Amino acid sequence: MTSEGWNNLFVRERLIRFSHCDLAGIVFYPQYFVLFNDLVEDWFAEALGVGFPELHMVRGIGMPVVRVECEFVAPSRVGDRVDMALSVTHVGNASVGLTITCRCQGVDRLRAKLTIVSLMLAQTKSMPLPEDIRESISAFRGNLS
Amino acid sequence: MTSEGWNNLFVRERLIRFSHCDLAGIVFYPQYFVLFNDLVEDWFAEALGVGFPELHMVRGIGMPVVRVECEFVAPSRVGDRVDMALSVTHVGNASVGLTITCRCQGVDRLRAKLTIVSLMLAQTKSMPLPEDIRESISAFRGNLS
Amino acid sequence: MTSEGWNNLFVRERLIRFSHCDLAGIVFYPQYFVLFNDLVEDWFAEALGVGFPELHMVRGIGMPVVRVECEFVAPSRVGDRVDMALSVTHVGNASVGLTITCRCQGVDRLRAKLTIVSLMLAQTKSMPLPEDIRESISAFRGNLS
Amino acid sequence: MTSEGWNNLFVRERLIRFSHCDLAGIVFYPQYFVLFNDLVEDWFAEALGVGFPELHMVRGIGMPVVRVECEFVAPSRVGDRVDMALSVTHVGNASVGLTITCRCQGVDRLRAKLTIVSLMLAQTKSMPLPEDIRESISAFRGNLS
Repeated sequence: MTSEGWNNLFVRERLIRFSHCDLAGIVFYPQYFVLFNDLVEDWFAEALGVGFPELHMVRGIGMPVVRVECEFVAPSRVGDRVDMALSVTHVGNASVGLTITCRCQGVDRLRAKLTIVSLMLAQTKSMPLPEDIRESISAFRGNLS
Repeated sequence: MTSEGWNNLFVRERLIRFSHCDLAGIVFYPQYFVLFNDLVEDWFAEALGVGFPELHMVRGIGMPVVRVECEFVAPSRVGDRVDMALSVTHVGNASVGLTITCRCQGVDRLRAKLTIVSLMLAQTKSMPLPEDIRESISAFRGNLS
Repeated sequence: MTSEGWNNLFVRERLIRFSHCDLAGIVFYPQYFVLFNDLVEDWFAEALGVGFPELHMVRGIGMPVVRVECEFVAPSRVGDRVDMALSVTHVGNASVGLTITCRCQGVDRLRAKLTIVSLMLAQTKSMPLPEDIRESISAFRGNLS
Repeated sequence: MTSEGWNNLFVRERLIRFSHCDLAGIVFYPQYFVLFNDLVEDWFAEALGVGFPELHMVRGIGMPVVRVECEFVAPSRVGDRVDMALSVTHVGNASVGLTITCRCQGVDRLRAKLTIVSLMLAQTKSMPLPEDIRESISAFRGNLS
């Protein structure tokens, strides 16, 4: 179904800023991971309906990255407007697999795979993915029965 | 040869600081990549004998990361003293493969693989690894004939 | 003239993100200065009509901060939507005085004063404010004519 | 008394790193505030005898900056080794006034004044400076009876 592919994509435009760039004039790569974190944060709030403030502060649940893999294909520069696109590749018991790609004018800048896990913050211990989040991810993927 | 294994390891202790940690009280993972960058910077200056100021400013060469893969095994917290160890896994025409592991009291915190490439900064274009750097890496690996 | 006061204000809403916050759960104050830099960047591009890419890359001019003063009145937390407002307090030969205030729901979070100067990047040497930027700032302040 | 002046100074050398610098090739000024935070962290641990982990995690006390003023006198570049020196200017009921200067080869790079306050983290509410910290600061200033 094309609708599944359509649903399973969360895209936000980002401006590459002066504060992202190093003395080579290109994005300092750790800044991309901050942008990934911001994107996941927006995806939770806007697509899954659970904001990080509620998740962390009220429910005491974190969603840290436990694995990341990223290929930097082409450099980004100050003033570039890039599209960052997130999709879900798998949902496990406690983990969610994501891909993030970053493009500018149709050309890939990077391709990344992340695994995030649900964590009880008080004990820094992994926990099964909360049911409401699991359902929201299913709806996002377009396979909600 | 044990000397090769011995040589092929650059280790620095780092203090996990308040400024590295997020509201979950653990290292915000993009900060690890800043620590990786700092470690590669120290490795160039102290083990390879070519400082980043000379490399970037005088010679116009950058060494950006083009691929990274990292497994975060256990969280680090403010006040932890971790050992970050870098070793070389391969040397290509323009690229160098590195592994970085981070440990605290003998327990792994993360395991990473990075690929860096030599880049002419003026054109943002890859170039063969400079011969002196190639030789320094060989000496570091302990296989300098 | 009320129009002058009206013109002399550049306001942007910002979301306080997970990546801004420290382990006390509030914005880590150096992050505010990144937000200031981003705001000045947007002000140049959107209000003065000169983007940082053109300014830095094409014209070789930087606008670094040479003085800053900031009072942090109340903490900001993840999920807060704050308004950051910039206004011009003086224009010198090479320098521009700015105030930045940050508010959330009508309550001040911080009040800052910054001085930025125009700098020839090649020599890291201050230079008179370019005439087009001086004029754009005058227009922004509403006292053009 | 010369001993008071001598005591009332906490100095640490810092290497200006690639990760501190912007595309103008000089330290991106928000990075200085991270360095300030790291310096205050070291001062607490090494001069006052109270580490941030104990202070934040065990005792639930934060020491956020509520006011900062900084004059950036000359730029710093990658590879510079700078001395950052902290001294105490006043001790109030809940607040401590600090100056931080940064020098390279005897020349000032910046001069800053900071005010930090003791804060109960649970309520984000200021509290009187803990007695042991007040005494450690007095000893540091060299005026302990």
